[in-house]
Amino acid sequence: MRPSGRAPDEMRTITIEPAFTRHAEGSVLIGFGDTKVLVTASVEEKVPPFLRGRGEGWVTAEYGMLPRATHTRGNREAAKGKQSGRTQEIQRLIGRSLRAVTDLKALGERQIVLDCDVIQADGGTRTASISGAWVALRIAVDKLLAEGKLSSDPIQQKVAAISCGIHQGTPVLDLDYPEDSTAEADANFVLTGDGRIAEVQATAEGATYDEEALLRLLRLARIGCSQIFAAQDKATGR
Amino acid sequence: MRPSGRAPDEMRTITIEPAFTRHAEGSVLIGFGDTKVLVTASVEEKVPPFLRGRGEGWVTAEYGMLPRATHTRGNREAAKGKQSGRTQEIQRLIGRSLRAVTDLKALGERQIVLDCDVIQADGGTRTASISGAWVALRIAVDKLLAEGKLSSDPIQQKVAAISCGIHQGTPVLDLDYPEDSTAEADANFVLTGDGRIAEVQATAEGATYDEEALLRLLRLARIGCSQIFAAQDKATGR
Amino acid sequence: MRPSGRAPDEMRTITIEPAFTRHAEGSVLIGFGDTKVLVTASVEEKVPPFLRGRGEGWVTAEYGMLPRATHTRGNREAAKGKQSGRTQEIQRLIGRSLRAVTDLKALGERQIVLDCDVIQADGGTRTASISGAWVALRIAVDKLLAEGKLSSDPIQQKVAAISCGIHQGTPVLDLDYPEDSTAEADANFVLTGDGRIAEVQATAEGATYDEEALLRLLRLARIGCSQIFAAQDKATGR
Amino acid sequence: MRPSGRAPDEMRTITIEPAFTRHAEGSVLIGFGDTKVLVTASVEEKVPPFLRGRGEGWVTAEYGMLPRATHTRGNREAAKGKQSGRTQEIQRLIGRSLRAVTDLKALGERQIVLDCDVIQADGGTRTASISGAWVALRIAVDKLLAEGKLSSDPIQQKVAAISCGIHQGTPVLDLDYPEDSTAEADANFVLTGDGRIAEVQATAEGATYDEEALLRLLRLARIGCSQIFAAQDKATGR
Amino acid sequence: MRPSGRAPDEMRTITIEPAFTRHAEGSVLIGFGDTKVLVTASVEEKVPPFLRGRGEGWVTAEYGMLPRATHTRGNREAAKGKQSGRTQEIQRLIGRSLRAVTDLKALGERQIVLDCDVIQADGGTRTASISGAWVALRIAVDKLLAEGKLSSDPIQQKVAAISCGIHQGTPVLDLDYPEDSTAEADANFVLTGDGRIAEVQATAEGATYDEEALLRLLRLARIGCSQIFAAQDKATGR
Amino acid sequence: MRPSGRAPDEMRTITIEPAFTRHAEGSVLIGFGDTKVLVTASVEEKVPPFLRGRGEGWVTAEYGMLPRATHTRGNREAAKGKQSGRTQEIQRLIGRSLRAVTDLKALGERQIVLDCDVIQADGGTRTASISGAWVALRIAVDKLLAEGKLSSDPIQQKVAAISCGIHQGTPVLDLDYPEDSTAEADANFVLTGDGRIAEVQATAEGATYDEEALLRLLRLARIGCSQIFAAQDKATGR
Repeated sequence: MRPSGRAPDEMRTITIEPAFTRHAEGSVLIGFGDTKVLVTASVEEKVPPFLRGRGEGWVTAEYGMLPRATHTRGNREAAKGKQSGRTQEIQRLIGRSLRAVTDLKALGERQIVLDCDVIQADGGTRTASISGAWVALRIAVDKLLAEGKLSSDPIQQKVAAISCGIHQGTPVLDLDYPEDSTAEADANFVLTGDGRIAEVQATAEGATYDEEALLRLLRLARIGCSQIFAAQDKATGR
Repeated sequence: MRPSGRAPDEMRTITIEPAFTRHAEGSVLIGFGDTKVLVTASVEEKVPPFLRGRGEGWVTAEYGMLPRATHTRGNREAAKGKQSGRTQEIQRLIGRSLRAVTDLKALGERQIVLDCDVIQADGGTRTASISGAWVALRIAVDKLLAEGKLSSDPIQQKVAAISCGIHQGTPVLDLDYPEDSTAEADANFVLTGDGRIAEVQATAEGATYDEEALLRLLRLARIGCSQIFAAQDKATGR
Repeated sequence: MRPSGRAPDEMRTITIEPAFTRHAEGSVLIGFGDTKVLVTASVEEKVPPFLRGRGEGWVTAEYGMLPRATHTRGNREAAKGKQSGRTQEIQRLIGRSLRAVTDLKALGERQIVLDCDVIQADGGTRTASISGAWVALRIAVDKLLAEGKLSSDPIQQKVAAISCGIHQGTPVLDLDYPEDSTAEADANFVLTGDGRIAEVQATAEGATYDEEALLRLLRLARIGCSQIFAAQDKATGR
Repeated sequence: MRPSGRAPDEMRTITIEPAFTRHAEGSVLIGFGDTKVLVTASVEEKVPPFLRGRGEGWVTAEYGMLPRATHTRGNREAAKGKQSGRTQEIQRLIGRSLRAVTDLKALGERQIVLDCDVIQADGGTRTASISGAWVALRIAVDKLLAEGKLSSDPIQQKVAAISCGIHQGTPVLDLDYPEDSTAEADANFVLTGDGRIAEVQATAEGATYDEEALLRLLRLARIGCSQIFAAQDKATGR
Repeated sequence: MRPSGRAPDEMRTITIEPAFTRHAEGSVLIGFGDTKVLVTASVEEKVPPFLRGRGEGWVTAEYGMLPRATHTRGNREAAKGKQSGRTQEIQRLIGRSLRAVTDLKALGERQIVLDCDVIQADGGTRTASISGAWVALRIAVDKLLAEGKLSSDPIQQKVAAISCGIHQGTPVLDLDYPEDSTAEADANFVLTGDGRIAEVQATAEGATYDEEALLRLLRLARIGCSQIFAAQDKATGR
Repeated sequence: MRPSGRAPDEMRTITIEPAFTRHAEGSVLIGFGDTKVLVTASVEEKVPPFLRGRGEGWVTAEYGMLPRATHTRGNREAAKGKQSGRTQEIQRLIGRSLRAVTDLKALGERQIVLDCDVIQADGGTRTASISGAWVALRIAVDKLLAEGKLSSDPIQQKVAAISCGIHQGTPVLDLDYPEDSTAEADANFVLTGDGRIAEVQATAEGATYDEEALLRLLRLARIGCSQIFAAQDKATGR
């Protein structure tokens, strides 16, 4: 029995509230149950130095957690003067995942920055961030298309992410915090709308796992992502 | 005529949504028009080193702005590796303002940290932060009282803050961003529920001002704070 | 009775020693009693990035305290690797105060940096810094005028600053350290030569204050600043 | 055809030189072809704060690359003042991988730090680091056992890691730098001596991949790790 | 001919003004011509962690240069967030030089920190710092002796320092800035009152030098230090 | 008797292994007994900002120590976020020493960076670094000459360095760690192939020394450097 009473292949409620803030070109508040992440997409008409003059764009992400998003207050990274290894690992993953479905040439020489800020955490903040970032990116790109700044759509696929894990011997979908902190193995899958894989990060926590378990977790992830894709479609009116 | 069409002594709509997040002992989303600040109050059963063993508590604040809370994206302070002078100035002001109405001895040897994170900015983020922080503090202290951890109420007064300024020669209440960025003078007042002053910060921006102008701004601030006090009462059920 | 035996409206001795060092375009050692601040004005023929190409100048300030300027040694900010919030708050105030009396267009595309370094501290270091910075700025600008680099004088007014506070219930002028550390309220006023206000920062320390007290402190500040203006005139030979 | 002329399932030459330096409790220079990593294991009779007094040990890792380990010189992280996100991600992976095969209770309240410093880089530095770190750890633990400081062996399994990827449409084993920089997908597998999985990190680089490809890469990884296990056995005389 | 018109073995005027500031246990403004350094000695009744509980004391130094001590303004190290290599090298040299003449056991478990802040620079700031630091240390130790906190004098010798160099082929004493910036070789000597050597740092700048030149510079240094010792005696009333 | 049993004027075995790594333009592993330093020379076709457009080159150095190069593990400077004063002092010395024998004009507008990374430490790491850096520089410059990028040889002399010290009253050559940590005085000499001096750094450690001792140490240094020069010749095939 899962702490939440959910079935092993049952997701938490997915909520996607587009246009949560008004200044950003794209903005969304995404919820996986009690995990809430605010994602904004900012379009900048410049690219990082390593891409200048190549006629290509860039999609990148930053991630942060409000100090009291968690059960006990964490120190503010801005006050500590550096981002933790965990933060950097997560924001690199988010950026990679979005770039995996974006045609950077079609984006032109501009950058889209996806800021993922966790308002409330209950497990799965990185997967909610990726899933929400796609919506924010979609909205921002639609705006560029509507304004005639882009002539073709650089987004090639939907992308979504979900965590799965082995909890008390059972493979389960969409770990919440109580499960995440006691899971024997923990895997994050980033999948695309056409059923392909953009990233797998599967980690033993205390116990190693075998190939069969990896495949069972991947199958759970497919179930979860299909629900996220549906929610993304609904939120973006597609 | 103000850019927003408001009368000189007209506040923007004040919204206070308590319990916006679930982990913090106190939490509120406060809005002054399009300015939205999430404030959480975290109770910690320890005090900073300089107070240890003195049987006294502490109230402090931290302030941050999400990168895309503003019209154009600002760099993330955690990524830059330091908090700006502006951020530090604001968080020091918030902490001082709340301490001005708190009996630190009655609080006992514990600390309450008020995290003020700006979700969306349109002028007045520091005054919204102070006004919202009081609500979050109130909720957290009520919880300590209800749990019997405090025997008497350490909060001695309500506190609220508002900005006023001289815009195109006219003293106006509650500057929004278009006014704030062009005002000749800009003043932040922190007032208490019994009509006293906790802090005045009045700054010439381009043009100096005289004593009469200072007093007119203070009178506008009294009008604004009385409305904030009413909203605070309503939000905390008093 | 004040710890120093001064009358409530009595300033400490003001000393201004121009040309204290030789390399800077302007330099002064200012003393408010035992508080001694060395201020240098450095003229740089460039402006910060945000002003480039606009034909306008900039005046800015930096503030520091020698480690043993105080009763007990403080850590060196250069060794700690960052400036405290207090330091940043003060240097922002100094810069703003000087800009309030400077016509930046008339200054042309150059920057004047005012470095205020506290040699010895006994309360009022920020107000001594502002008052001394004006003298250093005046000397540096006179040099630019004499050299024909400026055709008109960009300094529109004198500016001076003084702290006042409520000490044991009595409003007093020019707080020294023993008063400053026990005052119920503490206010810094930045006034101009023509009697106008450039900045007010009035803070409750333990007790809030009322409008009447604010006005009484402002009146004391006018008394103090008129004496500083006289000392500035004498030091600059006007 | 691979740039190196290797067959798709052909590893580069594995070299393991134990006791490369003399001060560390365990030390090894491991080579995967031209990739050379010096790993030292340092035994410390203390644990990080979060484990104090719990009778449990800790295994952690740090990773660095000498500035000219690569084709063009990279900036020294110590000079830049911070470790990159990539560095932190890698050292977290190394630590996790080694802990996956260590019984931390059996280790007792002590810490073993694995320093992995890349002397020369040609792709696969993180997998060589993990594979070499196991040897350094093994040597250090054998020393603790020989000295009677440990009564039972805390190392439960061998662990090794290898990168695989899809290069010009073909799944290949043990990517060198020319392959790594042009691969369509890149996966790092951390496997244990008994055939189980400790970690999978599989990333699309430009092209997404499907489940079949993931499994083919995993099979290649099994081939590679079995050769690394053999080299580890030889190096540790087992 | 030297730029200043001095003879090759002629020092600049040495000025030593004790008790320049009032809070420090020892304080002095030392001048070597236009080079002016404020040195304070702070007595702290604690020692650095590596000495705790060993009944021994410590003498250390910190060095800083006010931003406009020099011909053109340098960036403030506190604002840059780190001390330069030059600063660290100098403060390590000052500390070592003073420890060379101090019996740390006789000092007891306390630390004396010598803060050397350059008010105005014209070459020789490190040697003026060392020479002045000895006076500040002497004053602080005399105070500890007078208060009965020390039963015997831990200062075993006087110590002074001077720079010499080869300028246009001629060995000269006490380089000022115009000489320092064009010298072919530059040497700093730290000598003790009994004629012994505490430190030599002799550096080729453009041209290497021979043993004979090293000895000639050392002889000049003896001339200079004997004059500094006399000034130290006079300043401390010995 | 020296701890190692060496005669007072006896060097440890000097080993120089050129081409230790393959990417750098010059590379060498140098050993003074158990002290092992890997030095790489990286040629960059650009110069630091202060030299741009002057047609002159630059030679600079960076120094690092692997965390477990020493008897007990030291913290990694990249993880601490700054280089120690010792590190900066050493890398400045290495750069200065190599520039003392290089004609920077003849080098043309390019920079050579010498990275000295200590693999294993047993005293004398800075002198081994300088001596090895010359070999790496020589190899890199020979390559530039062979490629026709340089028309004349910018290296004017060989340079080598060695530490000497007074150990239990006896002047000894080439201190190893047990001697270095207990020596009464410690001197590092940087000498050129034609017998001249590039740098002397002679420091009292506990006891001061006299002129005679300085000269005896210099004579020992000449003995040591002549052996290093021979090893350099052999390694570079001259």
